[in-house]
Amino acid sequence: MADAAVDSVTPVPVAIVGAGPAGLMLAHLLGRAGIETIALDTRTRHEIETTQRAGILEADIARDLVETGVSDRILADGYEHEGIELRFGGQAHRIDFQDLVGESVWLYPQTDVFVDLANARQRDGGTVLFGIKDTEVLDITTGNPRVRYTAPDGTRHEIRARYVVGADGSRSMCRGLVPEDRRVRYGKEYPFAWFGILTEAPMSAPELIYAHSAHGFALISQRTETVQRMYFQCDPEENVDAWPDDRIWETLQARVAGPDGFRLKEGPVFEKSVLKFRSFVQEPMRWGSMVLAGDAAHTVPPTGARGLNLALHDVKVLAEVLVRAFGSEGENALDDYQPQALQRVWRAQNFSYWMTQMLHTAPGGSDYDLRRQLGELDNVVGTRAGRTYLAEQYTGWPTRPTA
Amino acid sequence: MADAAVDSVTPVPVAIVGAGPAGLMLAHLLGRAGIETIALDTRTRHEIETTQRAGILEADIARDLVETGVSDRILADGYEHEGIELRFGGQAHRIDFQDLVGESVWLYPQTDVFVDLANARQRDGGTVLFGIKDTEVLDITTGNPRVRYTAPDGTRHEIRARYVVGADGSRSMCRGLVPEDRRVRYGKEYPFAWFGILTEAPMSAPELIYAHSAHGFALISQRTETVQRMYFQCDPEENVDAWPDDRIWETLQARVAGPDGFRLKEGPVFEKSVLKFRSFVQEPMRWGSMVLAGDAAHTVPPTGARGLNLALHDVKVLAEVLVRAFGSEGENALDDYQPQALQRVWRAQNFSYWMTQMLHTAPGGSDYDLRRQLGELDNVVGTRAGRTYLAEQYTGWPTRPTA
Repeated sequence: MADAAVDSVTPVPVAIVGAGPAGLMLAHLLGRAGIETIALDTRTRHEIETTQRAGILEADIARDLVETGVSDRILADGYEHEGIELRFGGQAHRIDFQDLVGESVWLYPQTDVFVDLANARQRDGGTVLFGIKDTEVLDITTGNPRVRYTAPDGTRHEIRARYVVGADGSRSMCRGLVPEDRRVRYGKEYPFAWFGILTEAPMSAPELIYAHSAHGFALISQRTETVQRMYFQCDPEENVDAWPDDRIWETLQARVAGPDGFRLKEGPVFEKSVLKFRSFVQEPMRWGSMVLAGDAAHTVPPTGARGLNLALHDVKVLAEVLVRAFGSEGENALDDYQPQALQRVWRAQNFSYWMTQMLHTAPGGSDYDLRRQLGELDNVVGTRAGRTYLAEQYTGWPTRPTA
Repeated sequence: MADAAVDSVTPVPVAIVGAGPAGLMLAHLLGRAGIETIALDTRTRHEIETTQRAGILEADIARDLVETGVSDRILADGYEHEGIELRFGGQAHRIDFQDLVGESVWLYPQTDVFVDLANARQRDGGTVLFGIKDTEVLDITTGNPRVRYTAPDGTRHEIRARYVVGADGSRSMCRGLVPEDRRVRYGKEYPFAWFGILTEAPMSAPELIYAHSAHGFALISQRTETVQRMYFQCDPEENVDAWPDDRIWETLQARVAGPDGFRLKEGPVFEKSVLKFRSFVQEPMRWGSMVLAGDAAHTVPPTGARGLNLALHDVKVLAEVLVRAFGSEGENALDDYQPQALQRVWRAQNFSYWMTQMLHTAPGGSDYDLRRQLGELDNVVGTRAGRTYLAEQYTGWPTRPTA
């Protein structure tokens, strides 16, 4: 197919494979700097808009959305959370982010971030192509990489770019273009997954509750005044059809139960799904004229709410180096991307792993592990340093990590 | 044997099985309160004095030794350490305890703590019997427990006590007296051990160095100006005879090597041994008239330097409740022992586990784990909260944990 005639050829400085939040935010930031992009995605806009995903944004990511002019909808429709609750031994322990590190996080679903970005691209005249197929990325080891794709109408097109960005998510095709003998894939599988639900119910709590229990982990989240998002640890092969509402609520209530009599406010469950997760990093994050960003290069378990934030940090750094690369510095500027991105990536890998290990019960795990986890949670909430250590990781480190 | 005639019967308020640091410190503290004890140990004094053990004391444990009148030798012969070094990625990162938490630790070998305590007992007229055998603890579910033993001269004796304390170390006989169906044993094995050496060499560094490397963990410790203690991670089945000095130094140097050119000061190795370790807790810590303290009830890997400190914290709490029990409160006072001791025990279990996991390489461990460890170490040293979180655990929590 590589030599087949195409119906059109379009030159553009940067082609972005993947039009999720990472790809679109990069397009937005580059657009502001006068660098044109074409972003393309195999999914339709409707598909992306209806996929339920994470909902916690770091304060400076939220600020970026507002201040770079994507949208200020987050200020109206999002919820500022000044902390989270760790619940263990049946008792509530608040981690007060504002008090500890002077930061908040924002509850604002990834879907809404996507909608805001897609609207902003449309408003600003950026090119975003949804629902394309048969994407091919060619010549990335040259200075003239190309992207070919088939449009929804069946016509075949070619983009000639200076750089190609692989922002094509956790099942990235682009990352496979780094030759097998030149890439390293780091990974860790987990013996559990999350059972996620959406329910029509009032909020059970004003902030997220991360609940440790001998029965397993649960996360009580929110979406709106009338729709709530909750999760509980389950087997990766769990079948959602085996879970009528009663069983779901019984499971969730057992995991948050305690002497304080705390109960979740129940309602009909209208969406349920099993979220598998793993820890993954591929290096290098750049190969010739192709650069990887976000989930294409790394994924984390959702426990620390790092995934989307990490992806948006990647593109923030990447936009900066690309602007420099198109300026007087030239290609050398790109050398700064990976080292800057990776330090945050591995810190976030550890934070996500840590939160996961501290809060989930491993199948076949020992009572020692369970008691030790309680000792760890005691250590974390027991002193200001412990709470701050968690808070500063949850709210995100400064973009340029301090020495 | 339980009914055999004995050569003598001695009444005493508290019989202490085990005359290591925990047993002797308890005897010392009770002695100060006017409560007599008999401490007995199957080992000879010489055996205990020549067993190499941990060497780091928390500041308030060191203060207790001086202020309760055991000895002030620690002030003359010990070394005050105001921090430790974490070494990873071939670079040094200091954790400054004084700056972070206003505390120091003391380098002072367990052997010396033992000698000081044994001398203090002798000075104060306390009864300590070394080198006894065939210890039997009887009638612990009554208010009149007895301890029988055979003296070095072959004669058989009985102690009639109100309480028996099992301070008989990690191979405790006493803990086995809690009925199998009424005790819980929590434990975790590790797939590595420490290869420990004593070498005649000058100090390589003024403070302990905890070194993470792709080759495995190493700990650079000190003993005196001319004798040093060092450890490196090894297989639990390692044979010390396979390790001539050259191989030991090559291994140690590789684990601390870095771009800063740091090198250990080498010398002849005059002692080498493999230290196996595990995490272990037995509950309950009291059964009838018998109470467990120190290693008899719980052991930790040595990585966080918690073992001896934890044992001495146990006996501090235990001495207090025993004094109350012999006063107006009576036996109910003993109910306070386990809850107070256990909170610290599980916090220390987690700290020891955490330090061990963060710094050792698991055999067959993945590159993901190695990189994640570096991300974690980055997190810990990267902010004041991270460093403080480690420092406050390493230097010991306040005796009564803060809420």
